[in-house]
Amino acid sequence: MDSIRVAILGYGNIGRAVEQAVDAAPDMQLTGIFHHTDSLESLDADVCVLCTPTREVPSFATRLAARGICTVDSFDIHGQILDYRAQLQPLTREQQSVSIVAAGWDPGSDSVVRALLLAMAPQGLTYTNFGPGRSMGHTVAAKSIEGVKNALSMTIPLGTGIHRRMVYVELEDGADFHTVEQNLLRDDYFAHDETHVIEVPSVDALNNVAHGVHLVRNGVSANMHNQNFEFNMTINNPALTGQILVACARAAVRMQQRGQCGCFTMIELAPIDLLPGTTEENIKALV
Amino acid sequence: MDSIRVAILGYGNIGRAVEQAVDAAPDMQLTGIFHHTDSLESLDADVCVLCTPTREVPSFATRLAARGICTVDSFDIHGQILDYRAQLQPLTREQQSVSIVAAGWDPGSDSVVRALLLAMAPQGLTYTNFGPGRSMGHTVAAKSIEGVKNALSMTIPLGTGIHRRMVYVELEDGADFHTVEQNLLRDDYFAHDETHVIEVPSVDALNNVAHGVHLVRNGVSANMHNQNFEFNMTINNPALTGQILVACARAAVRMQQRGQCGCFTMIELAPIDLLPGTTEENIKALV
Repeated sequence: MDSIRVAILGYGNIGRAVEQAVDAAPDMQLTGIFHHTDSLESLDADVCVLCTPTREVPSFATRLAARGICTVDSFDIHGQILDYRAQLQPLTREQQSVSIVAAGWDPGSDSVVRALLLAMAPQGLTYTNFGPGRSMGHTVAAKSIEGVKNALSMTIPLGTGIHRRMVYVELEDGADFHTVEQNLLRDDYFAHDETHVIEVPSVDALNNVAHGVHLVRNGVSANMHNQNFEFNMTINNPALTGQILVACARAAVRMQQRGQCGCFTMIELAPIDLLPGTTEENIKALV
Repeated sequence: MDSIRVAILGYGNIGRAVEQAVDAAPDMQLTGIFHHTDSLESLDADVCVLCTPTREVPSFATRLAARGICTVDSFDIHGQILDYRAQLQPLTREQQSVSIVAAGWDPGSDSVVRALLLAMAPQGLTYTNFGPGRSMGHTVAAKSIEGVKNALSMTIPLGTGIHRRMVYVELEDGADFHTVEQNLLRDDYFAHDETHVIEVPSVDALNNVAHGVHLVRNGVSANMHNQNFEFNMTINNPALTGQILVACARAAVRMQQRGQCGCFTMIELAPIDLLPGTTEENIKALV
């Protein structure tokens, strides 16, 4: 079988991880790395992995899908995923391509675990607890407070989906910590959670791309209560995101080859399509 | 949408759990329960869930697939799954039906978790640790030892896929415990694991259908080592098996309706097909 030709668009933390994962894949070759300001005319690939900021993703996905190129992205604005998918659906079907959207670990592999656990115990509660790990959204919000030179907002899981925010701030010269703290605690990003603000001399000294998930379900299977399930991970965040995007790039090309075209989230994919090797090899090793 | 018409073949622990799960499903109706000695001429359903002893499963699946009826089973002889799937494949494609084989929790949902973790961290080691819970195969082996009236073999996880066997035996009148113990420890089912034999006055007093899994992977994503993943569950075994079979019955009918016919294991299914509700509802709730 010919190897899958992969292009990367966007070359930050995630783009670099995607490059590593493509290099390590036995069935893929890298055909180009593009920055989001580049012209994409020379982009030639079976599938392009979009590693740009999330807000730019839909426009790039649309342009590439219009050329029949499969795309994979980690679009993560939860409330907009359905609309984005619906928008790409007719174009990908018309162009006979496959776009996999909202891939990564959450949304992404966590969504797959939540779907599986819901099938295994249809009544009950699932709690997804994140961290400890850096929240990008909250970090950006903290950095935007007047007097803050640099910031890091860590998400700390308290169980039952409740999180504490530990916000480490490095102040501008002359800024007053108490004022910064009060403004931050009033910000809508922080006003609804238990939040602690801590002044530090250097935010860079705290930098760590580790993250984690503790996902719990207690539910009912076939009328039997107290079925207990738990999924935990502690991971390097960009490495895992990049690896999952690459696995989804493989799935996209396989689905296109089978004529299963359109726009999909990860819960709509067969897990075997994420893996190199033949169906028989994977069934033998995993089932 | 019309509700899915489900028949059950075999009415032991699993068959009864399947009945409960179908009753609780918002999109299914039960059309009949058959014992494995019944004539199946009157069996009329979109999908039949096979709850007979595992060795009888392939013959029933073949007979039903030949009539274009979808089937779901928990065939669990690991070394024979690929052959069984290959045997049903041409028939199901010809009859435009779907058969889902080796469904349940292992093989089954554990296989899905193993596939997902392999995609998330392609290099590394996965260990599936079972229990504490009753091993059917080892219990049957223990019961077959001369002088044993009743037995229960519990599987105890010791980590890294190594298990201890705790075998509780109730003796026939006049049987010698030491002789029974020696014969059991020499039996091929027990000779390779740490095994403890314990005499009890009543095996029935110990009966418990609880089981568990502790599945662990430490691996490499995009060149980053030490990615840690863990999936745990403690469950009522027949209830979970029955529930998963019913979720797969739903997937079988959906795949047939889409023309995606053939014979599949659970790692070849999209998790969303296991769930009632529309694609949009499930993406909104889970992704």
